[in-house]
Amino acid sequence: MNYFSSKFKLGILGGGQLGKMLLTETRKFDIYTCVLDPSAEAPSKIACNEFTQGDLMDYETVVNFGKNVDVLTIEIENVNVNALETLEKQGVKVFPSSKTLKIIQNKATQKLFYVDHNIATAEFARFAYVSEIEDAIDNGGLQLPFVWKAAQFGYDGNGVKVVRSKADLKTLKDGECIAETMIPFKNELAVIVSRNVDGDVKTYPVVEMEFHPEANQVEYVICPARISAAVALKAKETALKVSQAFNHVGLLAVEMFQTQNDEILVNEVAPRPHNSGHHTIESGYTSQFEQHIRAILNLPLGKTDYKVAGVMVNLVGAEGYSGDVHYEHISEIMAMEGVTPHIYGKKQTRPFRKMGHVTIVNEDLNTARQIAEDVKNLIKVISQ
Amino acid sequence: MNYFSSKFKLGILGGGQLGKMLLTETRKFDIYTCVLDPSAEAPSKIACNEFTQGDLMDYETVVNFGKNVDVLTIEIENVNVNALETLEKQGVKVFPSSKTLKIIQNKATQKLFYVDHNIATAEFARFAYVSEIEDAIDNGGLQLPFVWKAAQFGYDGNGVKVVRSKADLKTLKDGECIAETMIPFKNELAVIVSRNVDGDVKTYPVVEMEFHPEANQVEYVICPARISAAVALKAKETALKVSQAFNHVGLLAVEMFQTQNDEILVNEVAPRPHNSGHHTIESGYTSQFEQHIRAILNLPLGKTDYKVAGVMVNLVGAEGYSGDVHYEHISEIMAMEGVTPHIYGKKQTRPFRKMGHVTIVNEDLNTARQIAEDVKNLIKVISQ
Repeated sequence: MNYFSSKFKLGILGGGQLGKMLLTETRKFDIYTCVLDPSAEAPSKIACNEFTQGDLMDYETVVNFGKNVDVLTIEIENVNVNALETLEKQGVKVFPSSKTLKIIQNKATQKLFYVDHNIATAEFARFAYVSEIEDAIDNGGLQLPFVWKAAQFGYDGNGVKVVRSKADLKTLKDGECIAETMIPFKNELAVIVSRNVDGDVKTYPVVEMEFHPEANQVEYVICPARISAAVALKAKETALKVSQAFNHVGLLAVEMFQTQNDEILVNEVAPRPHNSGHHTIESGYTSQFEQHIRAILNLPLGKTDYKVAGVMVNLVGAEGYSGDVHYEHISEIMAMEGVTPHIYGKKQTRPFRKMGHVTIVNEDLNTARQIAEDVKNLIKVISQ
Repeated sequence: MNYFSSKFKLGILGGGQLGKMLLTETRKFDIYTCVLDPSAEAPSKIACNEFTQGDLMDYETVVNFGKNVDVLTIEIENVNVNALETLEKQGVKVFPSSKTLKIIQNKATQKLFYVDHNIATAEFARFAYVSEIEDAIDNGGLQLPFVWKAAQFGYDGNGVKVVRSKADLKTLKDGECIAETMIPFKNELAVIVSRNVDGDVKTYPVVEMEFHPEANQVEYVICPARISAAVALKAKETALKVSQAFNHVGLLAVEMFQTQNDEILVNEVAPRPHNSGHHTIESGYTSQFEQHIRAILNLPLGKTDYKVAGVMVNLVGAEGYSGDVHYEHISEIMAMEGVTPHIYGKKQTRPFRKMGHVTIVNEDLNTARQIAEDVKNLIKVISQ
């Protein structure tokens, strides 16, 4: 297949900020792209060749969109997998596969997959309704505190909650869910594994993630992680094992806990470019977005090393502000050394909404980390 | 002015490959962009918010386009400068200014500008017609060989020729031109100077350029140049002097000769992102395209250092091939370490046409240079 010809078409399900960054890379290779997204104002709209407005969860819509492309990928997991299955049977190359997405879409199924494949993960119990959790606590089958996760459609801090008392149960959305043992981890780590169609594999350096305590969103991503070589190796090996278990093509971002005993437990995965890899645009030899394109088009994978240390700060809407967005002090942070803001182009801010990210690169990791803190303290995403 | 709002509009005259790479950076900052280009198939068309098809040399067209934007820039010098003058009077911020463009558009005027500002440049004579050159040779006023340059509208190897005999004169396009002394230079160097509206200035590292002997196109751009610190300093100082003389805002790429005596002579300038800075996308802390945006929007300038060494190879159409383009061995070059191709998306190739470029980055410059040669020997831009 000649990707560098106008006859080839790459389809992307979802036209949000990840899709936009992915499309930026396709411009470099002059690849013809088609995007499906429910919003007429999707950020990807102006960066693709063909834009179709439509529901990603609607079978007919996804099949009709997908049958016109040669390779189909996603920027969001919540798409109609039955449609992907149909397209696969029709000969469309779908990465990640419908099989992988079906497992990942449901957090309970995902956890069972790890157990089946002998991949270490935090202990958990599966429930059909929140009321079952209460019963389990009452009869001693479940101890407080624990981490509640909705089985489906949780993202950006929704669908994940620490439950410390029975009163907390009232705040949970009802439906299928899991209750997971809280891991008193030393670090949260992530490794992005890239694998092309031929099976060539390259892993990105291990990164360290720091979460905002309330919003449950990543606050800093630090590359490379400040961990021992032995722990880094174990994290990479675990991530590779997960990628292999899925027989995954494209990027697989594997989030892990490093326990107090330096065990590595898999938390969850994302089968696509991921927040933990945004820093690679500035810090890496090959950005995660370019690598995803290389992988799903079965091109040789790029070098995954870092050129310089990188720290990423998410730009989230400040508490107490909703409305037309204003980026206060953005000019000041751009005056700091090695600072690049990425604005996603959402017109409205609201508390904790992901509005962009900022990457800070430096030859010295500690300097980058310090500047990142200065950036975080200075910039404010507020309303006008 | 709040650039990060939907009320602000950036206009770009020209929608070719440079414009496309510039627009990629505006996506990162979510800046609203408008492009004017004569071709309905301009590469920039799918990367901007508003596309207008129209003649860049037509006064009315440029004025009508420009009056709807807040800041106007160019990706090509051949635009109607009278229209820019009108727009400046109407309050549109135009970078580069009409005054600078008027000087640069005409190579004779540009050379006289250097003389007026005490900037060292190769000796030259100005002619209104080619026939005047023959007279000058006959009466001993001009020695062979010399470099002929059309005063206007020369680019990509057109409009520049080494004249070794009177017979060569027959191949020249008639019209205003200059005849320049051939400089037996040690190196061709280039420095990109960035300057924002407030007058803050940062220079990029000095690069070394190697030209294809026949096509007169850059074959390798090498960053950093393999020259002494003293010569590098002199080159930077010269470039700064030129930037200051123009009172330039945005990027100014200054091409220079390093003579056998290590003198620096200015060859010519480009008041925009330039081929000699393409490597900064992968090698630099701040790509030249991001820097141009920062400069013309009066944002703080980014760090201009290089993270790793970079070598750029132009992808030009192979001799003997014209028609639908095919990139032979592109997959193989992508398997080499630190290699990123940039395909401009032109559908048709012809001998020496600029079809893209490839950047090779490595911690070690000599390794990058070796891989660049391997890339150049392997990839072929041919017709199908």
